[in-house]
Amino acid sequence: MRYDIAIIGTGPAGISAAITGKIRGKSLLLFGNADLSEKISRAHRILNYPGLPDISGQELAENLKKHLQSMDIPVTQERVGAVYAMGDYFALQAGTSMYESRSVILASGVMHGKALAGEKELLGRGVSYCVTCDAQFYRNKTAAIISYNRETEPEADFLAEIAEKVYYFPMYENPPRVSDKVHVMQENPVAVKAMACEPEDLGTVKLEGVQTDSSLLEVDGVFIMRDTVPAHQLVPGLAMNGNHVAVNLKMETNIPGCFACGDITGTPYQYIRAAGQGNTAVLSAVAWLAAQDRKEK
Amino acid sequence: MRYDIAIIGTGPAGISAAITGKIRGKSLLLFGNADLSEKISRAHRILNYPGLPDISGQELAENLKKHLQSMDIPVTQERVGAVYAMGDYFALQAGTSMYESRSVILASGVMHGKALAGEKELLGRGVSYCVTCDAQFYRNKTAAIISYNRETEPEADFLAEIAEKVYYFPMYENPPRVSDKVHVMQENPVAVKAMACEPEDLGTVKLEGVQTDSSLLEVDGVFIMRDTVPAHQLVPGLAMNGNHVAVNLKMETNIPGCFACGDITGTPYQYIRAAGQGNTAVLSAVAWLAAQDRKEK
Repeated sequence: MRYDIAIIGTGPAGISAAITGKIRGKSLLLFGNADLSEKISRAHRILNYPGLPDISGQELAENLKKHLQSMDIPVTQERVGAVYAMGDYFALQAGTSMYESRSVILASGVMHGKALAGEKELLGRGVSYCVTCDAQFYRNKTAAIISYNRETEPEADFLAEIAEKVYYFPMYENPPRVSDKVHVMQENPVAVKAMACEPEDLGTVKLEGVQTDSSLLEVDGVFIMRDTVPAHQLVPGLAMNGNHVAVNLKMETNIPGCFACGDITGTPYQYIRAAGQGNTAVLSAVAWLAAQDRKEK
Repeated sequence: MRYDIAIIGTGPAGISAAITGKIRGKSLLLFGNADLSEKISRAHRILNYPGLPDISGQELAENLKKHLQSMDIPVTQERVGAVYAMGDYFALQAGTSMYESRSVILASGVMHGKALAGEKELLGRGVSYCVTCDAQFYRNKTAAIISYNRETEPEADFLAEIAEKVYYFPMYENPPRVSDKVHVMQENPVAVKAMACEPEDLGTVKLEGVQTDSSLLEVDGVFIMRDTVPAHQLVPGLAMNGNHVAVNLKMETNIPGCFACGDITGTPYQYIRAAGQGNTAVLSAVAWLAAQDRKEK
């Protein structure tokens, strides 16, 4: 099935987009956590969401969840690892599945917390954000997964079927439920390290392994799985404005059919701004779909 | 007193701006109706204000009103007729008063309903939107007020003290409460008419009077008082984008210290979009005030 609109993210931006998209009769894919963005739930008090005076983050999350449920909008609990513009549609790699959608709305927020030392430099040289995309490169090799997101556990199992050895660093509280083939690590990763190399080899610097607080774990590849894949990694060719997706007032990105809203588009990081932009983004997507339909006739 | 931020409009955009402005500790003027934007109250069902599933316009208006009250934000029930950029502050003419504010947020929505025939052509040539601004030109002359807004009634009384004769066309339901000096008209205005003139006089075309459904009422001036003064009339020098105020993603207009949000900035006309933009606009105003403070030091 090819959906009309795929929405990535279940914060206020993604939820707002989904609600209005549903009202406009579009087929939707909403990717995220069924418990909604953890970031909302963690907020202590929210004073400035107009119409809901002085509520807790937990209450706002509950209200948004009820709103989705009242409109029969399901959440697809898979983490989107890559979005490819295929011309007249988008292919989305999520978990171990592939989805198709005519348009895409990026509402996955911003990455909080710093990148690991060496992460940026080694990206594409042993560091990856997408198991499904890159698992094949580690057949009969060793790889590590540093995961901030419990929902990546099936991807660890999948990787363990291909790679010779998989180390898994769970960066969340409860113990991970992964297959016996996956080696769960207790150490804390502090950096990804490059092999020492001669100056003339700088252009071909390669990963040596994961530096933890107690040792260096040598691996061929490292997957870093956060709640949010950096937008420019998620969508090849996406124009950025610093660390944020470049959009105009219609929430259009540089890629036709691809829109963005919420924190991913920049500051101020505010729930009500995100909800408003989500509404604008989905109505722009609806207008874009209508324009495509007219072209095809 | 010079306020930090003057907000014009009590729809979701203006209210959102006021709430966040108050949280940021700024002194505020919020101009509008204490019963909030009539437009919200008139909405039948609102399905897509995230967090408030399926509410009536009346309920949303009540929720927003309670939010304002819970934060002790009063509404100044005067209609702003003109905003002048004075260099390091703005002067706002509202009703028969003058206010000062360091920054301004335009959130007064869009004018619904068509302009009267002849209105645009005769603007500034006998047609005006601001009694306080232009009453002085009608000393010992006759003038008409076509009013869509009950709150302009004190302005009619004020005009009657200056002009020789004032005709008042109430375009709302209940009978107006104006002084005996004001002639309340029962006829419906259909156009403002220019005097017949020779072709070589086209550049100096002047008002003849108000054409009603039954007669031509000769007057020297006509004041047309809608809920919303067209933005480019309200703020001299304001850059427009068609019928909307031109803004960037920070909700900045071309005038430093002047921001805009909500329907006034363009489509889609949606409550949640307006609320989101109001938040962005006021945070931009807060940042702008801080930058001005740094400059002054």
